[in-house]
Amino acid sequence: MSDKVLLDYGSGGRASQRLVSGLFLEHLGNEELDRLNDAAVFTLSGRTAMSTDSFTVDPIFFPGGDIGSLAVHGTVNDVAMMGAIPRYITCGYIIEEGLPMDDLERIVASMGEACRHAGVHVVSGDTKVVPRGAVDKIFINTTGVGEVIADPEPGGDRARPGDAVLISGTIGDHGLTVLGTREGLDFEAKVESDSAALNHLLVRLVQELPDVHVLRDPTRGGLATTLNEITVSSNVCCELVEDDLPVRPEVRGGCSLLGLDPLYLANEGKFICVVPEADAEKALAIMRADPLGTDARRIGTMTDANPGKVVLVTRLGGKRLLGMLEGEQLPRIC
Amino acid sequence: MSDKVLLDYGSGGRASQRLVSGLFLEHLGNEELDRLNDAAVFTLSGRTAMSTDSFTVDPIFFPGGDIGSLAVHGTVNDVAMMGAIPRYITCGYIIEEGLPMDDLERIVASMGEACRHAGVHVVSGDTKVVPRGAVDKIFINTTGVGEVIADPEPGGDRARPGDAVLISGTIGDHGLTVLGTREGLDFEAKVESDSAALNHLLVRLVQELPDVHVLRDPTRGGLATTLNEITVSSNVCCELVEDDLPVRPEVRGGCSLLGLDPLYLANEGKFICVVPEADAEKALAIMRADPLGTDARRIGTMTDANPGKVVLVTRLGGKRLLGMLEGEQLPRIC
Repeated sequence: MSDKVLLDYGSGGRASQRLVSGLFLEHLGNEELDRLNDAAVFTLSGRTAMSTDSFTVDPIFFPGGDIGSLAVHGTVNDVAMMGAIPRYITCGYIIEEGLPMDDLERIVASMGEACRHAGVHVVSGDTKVVPRGAVDKIFINTTGVGEVIADPEPGGDRARPGDAVLISGTIGDHGLTVLGTREGLDFEAKVESDSAALNHLLVRLVQELPDVHVLRDPTRGGLATTLNEITVSSNVCCELVEDDLPVRPEVRGGCSLLGLDPLYLANEGKFICVVPEADAEKALAIMRADPLGTDARRIGTMTDANPGKVVLVTRLGGKRLLGMLEGEQLPRIC
Repeated sequence: MSDKVLLDYGSGGRASQRLVSGLFLEHLGNEELDRLNDAAVFTLSGRTAMSTDSFTVDPIFFPGGDIGSLAVHGTVNDVAMMGAIPRYITCGYIIEEGLPMDDLERIVASMGEACRHAGVHVVSGDTKVVPRGAVDKIFINTTGVGEVIADPEPGGDRARPGDAVLISGTIGDHGLTVLGTREGLDFEAKVESDSAALNHLLVRLVQELPDVHVLRDPTRGGLATTLNEITVSSNVCCELVEDDLPVRPEVRGGCSLLGLDPLYLANEGKFICVVPEADAEKALAIMRADPLGTDARRIGTMTDANPGKVVLVTRLGGKRLLGMLEGEQLPRIC
């Protein structure tokens, strides 16, 4: 194969086949994908959860991950947020003519590793190569399906006044890392993306606590925007305690420097968990027992004070309304 | 909303929500999508077929369709080729900042109409807006799931010597139309894309003929390439009769003009059907009874002469080997 991706590789003809068998099957292959049919066939039991996400992150490699691992983690997490065990994913690649083949191989290898770690199989794929300038390097879509084990499944509309609001770890790491890398900023202390597959932790959580009300990952728009979606859907108010928000000092420092608010930065390995007050301690214990949840903590409470609003109780005891993200600070963060 | 797509619309924040509720839910909404959870939840019975495809067609509007309807048809057809009833699809949009909002609305409305016609529901979506120049106008990924009703399901490896090879209609229409429109060519006679959802016809076929060996849609790479894939997977030889290949005169004319071979042009509303000889007439009757199969005909036979090869028997009685597509004549055809 050439050392750069050629238009031929997306033709559907012989060159495509070489790319598929020489690269994709090498890293992502399994019994179903290897059959190379128009569609994969498998059996899922019970209710199915399904989610899709396209990834356009710039740069395609960043500390803590790359567009390949991010694409697997993002979709695995969205499926898992429904209280489901992610099983199968599909990958759609749109590649710019001329992308170094080494970059593509590194990305596909990273996806393979992320899939093995998460326990999901790639069952269908598609590769388009477009002429130079029609796309910036590479964009990847992943779509996942899984088996729902929570009954009823968690949902953005299930938060109730009195519920505890938990976060599985620090916020803002991914957004700041990608922005910093893109702009060539050299922060004093190292920051890296939190990109990770949360499904194993989430499965334990819903198995041991069948009454989890909401699970949601605060990606684009950050914690503040995702909580706003939940409060609107559930018609409750979320009161957050500013001092309880976990933000790494280096992320806080980088954000000050750039005028960013970690509450609105994307996370790719964290989740919000809303549970009845009585389950809060147990939920935190389950989260903290997992390497991806060591910094888990309670950050607030759902109330009936201002339905549909997120309120931040500041260090000085004041209250500040946290709206949804307005405008776009950071395109191509995921 | 603005008359152009702004970066804000892909932020995950308030502007994204306006786009989702004002445009996407308007045209694609249904009970599950309207819940706006991270993933959709539904129940599928029996075996599940799943397929993904990204669409990068240029131009985004062409005679007979547009990137939106094409994205629905392409994935619906791939799922249906497994002898499955397509049920749910996901849509991932990657949009260039500045795309006219009217274009986006026209595309989404076209997807909605295509979904209603095919009987599938959009259950999960994702929208990314990238800065000007990072993508050419709009790319769309669709991923579909369906319930397999054929048992065993058709597969590229199930063709047997003696099987009849059928095609559901004329070849080359889509490829020539897109290329002609892109290049601003004005053919003497009107050509238009055959883009269509084949699922209803395919379901009837597998219900009435449980022993369909292969169903495959000859998209990128065209009829010749797809038949090569089948002959390799099944280790049989396909003998095609040149005079029996259905090509519209205007497509043949356009191809002559441009030096293209309709055997290698993409189709988006046709399928290859390989059945036991005894079922050939019945299969053709079922196909011809459907508006999408009126031009269906037998084009050849599987033999054991040259395993893995496709041979064209020419008008003069000669034999010509038809290889897979080499190189890429036509990028961004779908």
